Amino acid sequence: MVSRIGKEIELSPVELGSQTAKKVEINLASGTPDPRVMPLKEIKEAYEQVIDEYGSKVLFYPGAGGQEELIKEIKNIVLPSLDLSAKESEIVVTSGAQHAMELLAKYFLENDTIAVENPTFVETFTPLKLRSNVIVPISLDSNGINVDELEMLLKIVKIKLLYVIPNCHNPAGVNLCEERRKKLVELASKYDFYILEDDPYKPIAGSTPKPIKYFDKEGRVIYISSFSKIIAPGLRIGFVIAREDISQKLALLEQMDFSTSTINQYVVDRLIRKGIVTSRMKSLSEHYRKKMSILADSLQDEGFKDFNPPKCGFFLLLDLKKDSWKVFLEAVKLGLSFVPAKPFFLRGGETMARLSISVATEEQIVEGVKRLKKAWLNS
Amino acid sequence: MVSRIGKEIELSPVELGSQTAKKVEINLASGTPDPRVMPLKEIKEAYEQVIDEYGSKVLFYPGAGGQEELIKEIKNIVLPSLDLSAKESEIVVTSGAQHAMELLAKYFLENDTIAVENPTFVETFTPLKLRSNVIVPISLDSNGINVDELEMLLKIVKIKLLYVIPNCHNPAGVNLCEERRKKLVELASKYDFYILEDDPYKPIAGSTPKPIKYFDKEGRVIYISSFSKIIAPGLRIGFVIAREDISQKLALLEQMDFSTSTINQYVVDRLIRKGIVTSRMKSLSEHYRKKMSILADSLQDEGFKDFNPPKCGFFLLLDLKKDSWKVFLEAVKLGLSFVPAKPFFLRGGETMARLSISVATEEQIVEGVKRLKKAWLNS
Repeated sequence: MVSRIGKEIELSPVELGSQTAKKVEINLASGTPDPRVMPLKEIKEAYEQVIDEYGSKVLFYPGAGGQEELIKEIKNIVLPSLDLSAKESEIVVTSGAQHAMELLAKYFLENDTIAVENPTFVETFTPLKLRSNVIVPISLDSNGINVDELEMLLKIVKIKLLYVIPNCHNPAGVNLCEERRKKLVELASKYDFYILEDDPYKPIAGSTPKPIKYFDKEGRVIYISSFSKIIAPGLRIGFVIAREDISQKLALLEQMDFSTSTINQYVVDRLIRKGIVTSRMKSLSEHYRKKMSILADSLQDEGFKDFNPPKCGFFLLLDLKKDSWKVFLEAVKLGLSFVPAKPFFLRGGETMARLSISVATEEQIVEGVKRLKKAWLNS
Repeated sequence: MVSRIGKEIELSPVELGSQTAKKVEINLASGTPDPRVMPLKEIKEAYEQVIDEYGSKVLFYPGAGGQEELIKEIKNIVLPSLDLSAKESEIVVTSGAQHAMELLAKYFLENDTIAVENPTFVETFTPLKLRSNVIVPISLDSNGINVDELEMLLKIVKIKLLYVIPNCHNPAGVNLCEERRKKLVELASKYDFYILEDDPYKPIAGSTPKPIKYFDKEGRVIYISSFSKIIAPGLRIGFVIAREDISQKLALLEQMDFSTSTINQYVVDRLIRKGIVTSRMKSLSEHYRKKMSILADSLQDEGFKDFNPPKCGFFLLLDLKKDSWKVFLEAVKLGLSFVPAKPFFLRGGETMARLSISVATEEQIVEGVKRLKKAWLNS
């Protein structure tokens, strides 16, 4: 008696993992950025300053599409640092990348056929999934999505969208290589589909290939970014770069939820102008890279070898070679949480675990892997 | 090649009116609360305090469904002041009332038949409209929706939802009388449908009948509220009260957009606990009532008599007895903006104008009506 979406929506396994993580000592589950490196002081100052400077204006309703000043700063300061350029009319501010995915799914999809990486991030994928009839999983390796497998599919199936996470993949930790990025753009043109390039980690990724969008001449790539990793997720500010006819429709669709806080847009605008966003890119990428190498080394030390060492981001996908749900239940008993990764897979994945380095300290990562080994032995 | 929603979404006439209003001297178009009475100092202090007290926690991802402390304050402090009560599990925090409408439409509707007041608020109505196949307009008079007309309809048509704005109606300015509220609950039970009770103005309405939800024993009424009028719209915080099976599904649906700012939830929580929300209810209702009576008197003075004098809220619906779009174009030349109200009507409305008293000063209201008269004579 309700809609298909109303019937099919269910609790995200990441949300479940996060709820469990609250109760345990060592959290290798959460994808929240490291609270120790959030620019709390700068954010507090920015709230004070925008209220003092602009007064009640920062508390009016948000306009659809985003606040003009913020769009300018994204164009002039943020995009060059992401190897991108766009007109202001091609930029739409959203309530984070997840909201962008919801807008894009709402705009494009109505019982269509789409392709996604296998595995993919289950939360951003949900808005697409619940509006598609056929979803084709394409294999992922250490260089990202398998473009040959994708092309074989495209010869026999017409897809409307391809969804990819090009950098610091969630949950797989891999980067898509440049050659495949170019190939995806060619395929999109040849087989007439759009690419959703979901790239929230690039601001903290360090050196990565140029965005897929960089190679796009036909406006077939829609680029999704976020300030959640580089500033903080609790502000809920992200943005989309899309061809003008699409970006203008997305702005109109924002009238349906009007969810993007006005004052938070002013705060992000202020932080960009102060150089907080660009100056943190290098330091944060090093911060997370160090923690990731500790995780990779610890896993090696404990005899876990079945993973692709991530180049950046928060996540490492480990093949436990045992039912990861059973290992998870043992781990929770030992005060450790991670995310059993089966729900990220459209096929397979029963033995996979997503380990996150974002909120754990270096010591907790080392200790967490030891407990993981114990849990593994106990299960 | 896109979804139905992607095809059918268009620029809201309210957004258009607001954009025009920016360029003119006297704004009788905007529905933004009066900036002169926004609690700017208290909001600024609240941001400082929640960051100092909770640290980075206020900048984490929001959980689906809303922050626990805020839900408690809504239950214990806000609901009693709205003549309502609910369990915590029946409360869902949203990114404002518009977001709540989007979640509810997404949950319930898939090419269904619904009924709405004629006129209704075009922006909150849009998420319902774009997911319905048949929309039946029910007449509104000075006591709200015509329940006899509704019942005649229900005898021949099965509806899934009825959408009503019970207090300080937007755009009609009327309140639904208590007798009809009780009747709506009876009809919902007898004819098996749900009622969306969209009540953002009650916190600033002064004395109004008890909510429709108050009379609901079967969980057929879903109550939508907002902190936009009583605090400020730029925070984007509102909430829904619904039967637990529905509220829990709405919380899950929030995973699809995760748009509700965490820090803004903490700020609203803080303002409620400080008594800012409840203490402002009386003063704001008097503030707006005074402005509204100036508008009604000014209209009378200028010979405009075709309206129901609003008891509360921001809006008065005036029958200009001439094409309101033509009067609007003349008004803009004279430095006055209002909203031509045709788009709020499913049938009729060509001669109707929505006049708002929210952002104009008392002097501007008087002067605005004089210019309206001139524009009327010129058109």
